[in-house]
Amino acid sequence: MLAHLPLNAHPNPKNVLIIGGGDGGVLREVVKHPQVDKVDMCEIDEKVIEVSKKYLPNMSCGFESSKLNLHIGDGFEYMKNHQGKYDVIITDSSDPIGECLWLHLDLIKGMQEFCHSLYPVVDYCFTTIPTYPSGQIGFILCSLNPDTVFSEPLRKFTREEMEKLNLRYYNEDIHRAAFILPEFARKVLRDQDGSNDNAKNGH
Amino acid sequence: MLAHLPLNAHPNPKNVLIIGGGDGGVLREVVKHPQVDKVDMCEIDEKVIEVSKKYLPNMSCGFESSKLNLHIGDGFEYMKNHQGKYDVIITDSSDPIGECLWLHLDLIKGMQEFCHSLYPVVDYCFTTIPTYPSGQIGFILCSLNPDTVFSEPLRKFTREEMEKLNLRYYNEDIHRAAFILPEFARKVLRDQDGSNDNAKNGH
Repeated sequence: MLAHLPLNAHPNPKNVLIIGGGDGGVLREVVKHPQVDKVDMCEIDEKVIEVSKKYLPNMSCGFESSKLNLHIGDGFEYMKNHQGKYDVIITDSSDPIGECLWLHLDLIKGMQEFCHSLYPVVDYCFTTIPTYPSGQIGFILCSLNPDTVFSEPLRKFTREEMEKLNLRYYNEDIHRAAFILPEFARKVLRDQDGSNDNAKNGH
Repeated sequence: MLAHLPLNAHPNPKNVLIIGGGDGGVLREVVKHPQVDKVDMCEIDEKVIEVSKKYLPNMSCGFESSKLNLHIGDGFEYMKNHQGKYDVIITDSSDPIGECLWLHLDLIKGMQEFCHSLYPVVDYCFTTIPTYPSGQIGFILCSLNPDTVFSEPLRKFTREEMEKLNLRYYNEDIHRAAFILPEFARKVLRDQDGSNDNAKNGH
């Protein structure tokens, strides 16, 4: 989801930057995306990559991709020196304290507001994941394009493409559903007009 | 969700039976529903009710409702003796081993198939809940009416009604989203036509 949500909400995700993500899980999904030509990945801790390659071959197979340029270093520094180069930037770094609706709604609201000071469109969605606290993890999505509607996938894979891409969680419907929030969270994170419609959010 | 999903998928849920549910959580939500006139509840263990009344006043407030007729006894026996009386029956008994997509997909598939032998329409949905294994719990919904489409709420609360009912999780959008399954689960539980559209399911 961390890979396919932003990639499929972007009209043409040719150049992608991954910050962190040393285990290779996001990379694996990004490199197999048919529209992605080139992936830069900046991971600060080379050891994570080594360990993943050694013990998690299914997770780390994307490191073999010819689309990849791997950089070992600080993500903040890398981004300072490579501004405006990427269609999609995915940050998969350490979570400060876990960011899910059940535990950190105020923290999410604060992050969302901060992101709004930098981007015209900001949205929040979540996915279920049993190994994370409370069984879910959230994503904040930001776009410089004021017309972006993150919740509507711009690319609809056929059944054959889904099989070829070996998508086990993501599909077009789950993309949309990820943006639907329970009432207690909708009230805090979305407009107060009574809808869950995040197309209105961020404007 | 265990209360509002079936109640709002039914055109006229006047008479409701709850099997189990001694903590009173489902009851609280059922009695406040504007269309519900009468609730029978059959709980086998009176002690659960006593304890909930004593220690969980917010959970157990529905036991004060004038809509309620409480029966202490075996749910199977009760149902044998009261067939065809109810618009909606909600079972909130002990979960055999936890029924979520991550842990028990085959068990869910088996239950779904068994229910299909009794009901023309059967569907599965889930909600996030941090205190359950893997952070989610699933629901199997069954209808004797072949035209039932569980995923589409027949009742749309206004913002004012939502406030009055004090709905903290359920809303119209989350009702629909609860039926959207990740790809690995959709493949197993839904038709193989590539859609997450459960309207097609059960026919």
